[in-house]
Order: sequence, then structure tokens, then C-alpha cells
Amino acid sequence: MDKQKIIAVIGGGQCNKKEAKLAEEVGQELAKRGAVLVCGGLGGVMEAACRGASAEGGTTIGILPGEDSQAANPHVQIPIATGMGYARNIAVVKSAQAVIAVGGSYGTLSEISYALQGGTPVIGLNTWSLSRNGREDSSIIPAQSPAEAVDKALKLASKKGEK
Amino acid sequence: MDKQKIIAVIGGGQCNKKEAKLAEEVGQELAKRGAVLVCGGLGGVMEAACRGASAEGGTTIGILPGEDSQAANPHVQIPIATGMGYARNIAVVKSAQAVIAVGGSYGTLSEISYALQGGTPVIGLNTWSLSRNGREDSSIIPAQSPAEAVDKALKLASKKGEK
Amino acid sequence: MDKQKIIAVIGGGQCNKKEAKLAEEVGQELAKRGAVLVCGGLGGVMEAACRGASAEGGTTIGILPGEDSQAANPHVQIPIATGMGYARNIAVVKSAQAVIAVGGSYGTLSEISYALQGGTPVIGLNTWSLSRNGREDSSIIPAQSPAEAVDKALKLASKKGEK
Amino acid sequence: MDKQKIIAVIGGGQCNKKEAKLAEEVGQELAKRGAVLVCGGLGGVMEAACRGASAEGGTTIGILPGEDSQAANPHVQIPIATGMGYARNIAVVKSAQAVIAVGGSYGTLSEISYALQGGTPVIGLNTWSLSRNGREDSSIIPAQSPAEAVDKALKLASKKGEK
Repeated sequence: MDKQKIIAVIGGGQCNKKEAKLAEEVGQELAKRGAVLVCGGLGGVMEAACRGASAEGGTTIGILPGEDSQAANPHVQIPIATGMGYARNIAVVKSAQAVIAVGGSYGTLSEISYALQGGTPVIGLNTWSLSRNGREDSSIIPAQSPAEAVDKALKLASKKGEK
Repeated sequence: MDKQKIIAVIGGGQCNKKEAKLAEEVGQELAKRGAVLVCGGLGGVMEAACRGASAEGGTTIGILPGEDSQAANPHVQIPIATGMGYARNIAVVKSAQAVIAVGGSYGTLSEISYALQGGTPVIGLNTWSLSRNGREDSSIIPAQSPAEAVDKALKLASKKGEK
Repeated sequence: MDKQKIIAVIGGGQCNKKEAKLAEEVGQELAKRGAVLVCGGLGGVMEAACRGASAEGGTTIGILPGEDSQAANPHVQIPIATGMGYARNIAVVKSAQAVIAVGGSYGTLSEISYALQGGTPVIGLNTWSLSRNGREDSSIIPAQSPAEAVDKALKLASKKGEK
Repeated sequence: MDKQKIIAVIGGGQCNKKEAKLAEEVGQELAKRGAVLVCGGLGGVMEAACRGASAEGGTTIGILPGEDSQAANPHVQIPIATGMGYARNIAVVKSAQAVIAVGGSYGTLSEISYALQGGTPVIGLNTWSLSRNGREDSSIIPAQSPAEAVDKALKLASKKGEK
């Protein structure tokens, strides 16, 4: 049996309406294509993405910083309570075959860093861009729409799985 | 919508035949009653429990110590790769509403400790017993069979959820 | 240059007077013999041990669960803030060549478990004792006094270093 | 008694000669001014910084990803073995009152992210620069020399301590 594709959606625990709309559509697209969504389980981008995925019958996993599963947003079906604070950011991205970042602040940047460090592809929607010692680092793959982000994530996830 | 019951099954990454049989039956019973099984995702008791749950159509989550989801045993449906080594033991028990221990060595004892520390009930099948400063500590609730262990776990999980 | 001996002192964040006295004497003995003390950095046994070590001019390290170094007890000279909650228990024992347990509850038991799992010797003063599946597990080495505990810890730490 | 100032030096586990020279001078300057150096304990920038600090009689702490203290570089005086992999990056920056980044790859970027998330000042020497959704983020404070980096770190560490 094939393992299911698991895609992480990362972004701020608080977000503006535009980001919430993007995240919700990312969640919907992932569910329509049969991918499992993993995220940090809290509000903002995480909640919007889970809401979108749930509405389309998808599976949602929330990897929480605290010890209480009940802190998960209401659209998380499978809450994982780590009790490890922001170290849970690592588990969010390591559990995915590709990562989609929507907006986000420094916590999101830590997740992007961990993903790139481990060779997990990162697709960005209105998110960070990076320069290293004055030279642009183009590792974050830009997307212009939720559908394009999900397309790219699923294609790159397949390649990653093949290794 | 009610959150699903999530029960952890813990025990050695290597185990004898008797323990494997107990763990497999625990997995079967959990699946029959609609509970989600969470474990450490590797071999021994973890694999036997996942095999039992999968055979009955249950959902299995494996929270792995390493960074590679492919290290999960073949009966794990949802692998969570933490990259945090034995610290993942904490996430296994914190994610559950009750814990069933089958046999096990010091890693299992660390999981029992974390569960009891957080007030999560622990049911034991052929596992550790404890004395503190010369006085017996009877926090680990003994069970004589897999079915009894699952009965007790699900009852105590309900009580925990009510808090 | 030889690395210094680092010995962990573990026990409850709250403790009775007898345990505090034992822990303080353990700290004093460690400092007198030139060992560095590592602990979880908070109150109770941890604070008493650090107070004893500091009084004798020893070095004290506190590995804290939270993100704020200022949560350390006043006798911690080198606070390490992990932000990882109880997962810091692992770092406390993995950083030591031997562990001395004074009293303690389930958190202490998790530390004992992690130490024994990794082959780090554990000396016990009025602490847990263990049975596995009905058979006594005598891995925790009993001591009758702080001086005896420190003697045994330093001897076993040397052997561990030789490996 | 005042707690000592603890400054983190972060950067690649492998580095070029220029980065090693910068890191070594950062270590020397920190030691000359009485600050404790904390780092990830391994090679490259971490080793160069520890070598510099040790040469000037400073104290060096290495917070290691693995379970074995002996993996520390030879200039680490106090090795902390976490067994938590890259999650140890969080402890490195949370334990410091300011962070100096020298070069570095994605692991370093994760440390910068965690520091900025928690409000810990980050001084950069030939390191990352950031843009968020097309707008420059100037949170990383640039320095032109090791001495300037240490100056800025110690001043900002004092302010942080005052809060």
C-alpha cells in the first residue's frame, strides 16, 4: 500500500484576511487531491487551512506545542500534543514531503529553515525571501495561487518519495 | 463533532512472542471500538499493535524518533517524524487520553513516568511496577488481558475527556 | 586537558526537609571533589543541591524547561534555557556521567529511566525502586548517605569515561 | 550576585577560513570582556569561536544535538548533551542574552528565527538577510568586525537583562 502524501501548511498563528483566504484554499486543494494536511494545530493560517481541508473531507493533523490536545483548532482531526514548545516546528516539517508557507513571521521562518536544511521542498505564497551573505537564495519556490502552490508541492513530494 | 479517542500503546522496540500477541490483540480491540492508536512507530510491541489495529480497519499513528517517515513500521498509516530522539516519547503519551503498556524496558518506563506526571491513566500488561521510597506506588492499573486493558483505557479516557 | 566530571542531581521541584538536607550535602560533596553539578535548575532538590555546591565553590548548571533563564534558582551559575518543557529531563541526564537521585516523583522517574536506557549509572537516596514484570530490577544503586552517593557516582563516572 | 552575560555564537558546522577567523576573534573578544560563550558545540564556526574564547581564558558551553558529550569540539569546557537533534538550536539561542551569527546555512537561519521570535537581539557578520512578503526585514543587526559585533551584543544583552 502506498503511504499517503502528507503536506505541511505553515504560517502565522494570527493572520490577515488575505492570508486566511489563501490558506483555506490551499487546504481545500490538498483535500481534493487526497493529500493529508499537517500543521502546527493552532489558529490563523493553521486554522484556515484545516477549515478548508475539512470542508472537502480531507484529513488534518495538528502538531501542538503544548501538552493539551484540546488546544487544537476545531478543524484538527488528529491532534498530536508534544509538550515541547516551538521545537514542535521541526516535527511539522519533518513529517511532510513538501511544505507550503503562507505569509508568516519568525516561527514560520524557523520551519522554512528546518525544511530546507533537510531537503524538503518549500513553496511560498506571500512569504519570506532570503539572501545569504549578499547573494539571493532562491530555495523557496514561489507560487502565485493556492492551486499552483498545491500543484508544485504534490509534484515535488512525489520526487522526494522516489528517492 | 466529538474528537476521536486516542489511546497510546507503548512497549519495547523488540519483544517476545507473548508480548507481541498481547500487543496485537490490544490493537485489534482498540480498532473494533473505534479508537485511534498512537505509538512510537517502530518495531516490537509498536508494530504488533499497529498490525492488529490495521487488520480491523483502525487508524494508526506512529510518532518517530528520527527525521525519516519511512522508518515507520508498515502498519503505521500516519507517520509523524520528530527528529527529536527519545523526547518523542513525551509526545506519544501526551497525545493520548490513556496509555496501555505491554512489557517494555526503560524507554517504556520513561513513557509511563510522563503519563503519570500529567495525570494520564496507564494500564499495564506484564509491565513495570513501582515503589517510591519503600512504599508501593499503585498508579499503574493492572489488566489481565488485552480486552480488559482496552476496556479500562477507554473508560478512563472518557473520564479524562470530561475534565 | 581532561574534561571535568559532570554529575546530575535529580529530584522533586518540591521536597521535604530531609530530602533538602540530603541534596544540599550531595552538592557540597560534589563541589569538594571538583565535580560540576548539573540539574533541572528549579526549586526543591535542585535548589538545595545547587546551594550546597555553591557554598563550597563548585560550578552549577541548571537546564531549564522554559525559555527564561531567570527562572533558575539563585544558586545556578550557568542557566540553560531549553524551551522544551519536560523534554529537558533528557538533557539533564545525558549531560552527566552519573546521576544521583534524591527522593522525587514521576519527573524524577522519567530521568532515571532515560539514564538507565543510555547506560548512565544512577545512585539512589530514598528514591524509586523498580520491578519489571514481577521481577526486581536492581539497576538503581542504593546509597545510605550523601557522601556514599557521591563516592559511588564519581567512581562509576570514571568507568563510564574510560569506555 | 549578578548572573554572567551569556552570548551565543552561531554559524555553520563547516566554514571557510574567513568565517573561522571572524568566529575566533568573536570568541576572543567575548572572553576578554568576561562573557560566557554558548554555541552548538560542534565544528566550523562553533569550534573556531570556542578556540578563541578558550585562548583568552573564557568559559565555553556547547549544547550538542546528540547524546554523547564527547562529540563536543575540544575547546568546549561544558558540554550539554541533549539527544534532541536540531531542536537543540532552540536551547542555544534561548540560553543567550544576545546572538552573534557568523555566516551559516539553514541551521543558522533556524537559530536566527528562534532568537528574533523571542526578542533576543541578533548581530550578523556576513550572514543571512531577510525580506518578508517583499519588504526588507532589518531585524538582523549588521556588524563590520568581530569587535563591533561583540560591542553591540553586549550592549543589547544589558538592555535585555534590564527588562
